[in-house]
Amino acid sequence: MKRAIFILSALLAVVSAPAQTIKLPAPKKDAGMTLYQALSQRASNRNFSDKAVSDQTLSDLLWAACGINREDGRLTAPTAMNTQEIRLYVCRADGAYEYIAKDNTLVRVSDRDLRKDIAGPQEGVAKAPVFLVLTADLDRYSRKGDRTATFGAIDCGYVSQNVCLACEALGLSTVPRAGMDEKTLRSELKLAEDQLLLINHPVGYRK
Amino acid sequence: MKRAIFILSALLAVVSAPAQTIKLPAPKKDAGMTLYQALSQRASNRNFSDKAVSDQTLSDLLWAACGINREDGRLTAPTAMNTQEIRLYVCRADGAYEYIAKDNTLVRVSDRDLRKDIAGPQEGVAKAPVFLVLTADLDRYSRKGDRTATFGAIDCGYVSQNVCLACEALGLSTVPRAGMDEKTLRSELKLAEDQLLLINHPVGYRK
Repeated sequence: MKRAIFILSALLAVVSAPAQTIKLPAPKKDAGMTLYQALSQRASNRNFSDKAVSDQTLSDLLWAACGINREDGRLTAPTAMNTQEIRLYVCRADGAYEYIAKDNTLVRVSDRDLRKDIAGPQEGVAKAPVFLVLTADLDRYSRKGDRTATFGAIDCGYVSQNVCLACEALGLSTVPRAGMDEKTLRSELKLAEDQLLLINHPVGYRK
Repeated sequence: MKRAIFILSALLAVVSAPAQTIKLPAPKKDAGMTLYQALSQRASNRNFSDKAVSDQTLSDLLWAACGINREDGRLTAPTAMNTQEIRLYVCRADGAYEYIAKDNTLVRVSDRDLRKDIAGPQEGVAKAPVFLVLTADLDRYSRKGDRTATFGAIDCGYVSQNVCLACEALGLSTVPRAGMDEKTLRSELKLAEDQLLLINHPVGYRK
């Protein structure tokens, strides 16, 4: 009997454990808004409703941010020497994940809901159902020099602007922010020493 | 007679002097390409024809890069604390100009054709009729700290990605580049000491 309970408990633990890897639906890329409309509408918003963002919409957004747009694996956002050093994390109520563009998956890095650690005291921001966190992993450069960190920061800007514009096209809103609880995030996202924590984006629907 | 010649020479000098300020046509913002098409097509190109870029197309491109999209003077590209520290220069055969978004003008800063100083040895790049040069003027921050230069670099990335995407929508092509003759450019563009010279974009039609 004890053995049966043990096996049952173990099975339940496996079944109820959060998924380690989430396969996202293929990005649709069919939002009809023109680039110039998105540029005309682009504006920061710090007041979100708690309406959920679907995995389809999230997939569309992540592809726009730094997805693969060519057969050779190159991205929607340029990077210095094609280093592809920007690593993007998705933080939701169900935990934190790294976005892996080549597999279109989210790979779990933390079981914690880190949204308050990112939002800080901004209540309107804290309601956003999704936060994207953008980092520049300088270890991906084959050689590091005086300007490597600058290149990482510029490259972060490319991805962040894709997020800003795609949010407009998808009916979402966002604001790029530099403030966040860096100690907690570095630890929970398991960032490497030379992985710069640069920008976060609350993402959701405008309240 | 001498006096007449002097007056005539002076008049001719005024007539033939290059314009100090060029008023651009109003940006049209009517390119029909969707944001997602622009993201799908975004790719760096280093091989340009010498076909000219019209002032209308240039105006459309510059507005997309860092033009004003709201009545309160805010821009298509976000900047940290709305500092609007990215200053953009247009370098062509007829000289170099700073783009002033609020007036939609180009204000001359140098009479020299600086395109070779930007292109360096890349021959396919050197043919581009227009180069945009992106700088971050850190003096526009009311307070400077450890992260000010990083913010400037990130903000440069926002503008640079707008240039990449708008080139696709306008039938142009570009590549963001960090290499250029910094000494010549700093001097000819009359950059301030704390104005970071970060990225250049050859802009033209794909060869």
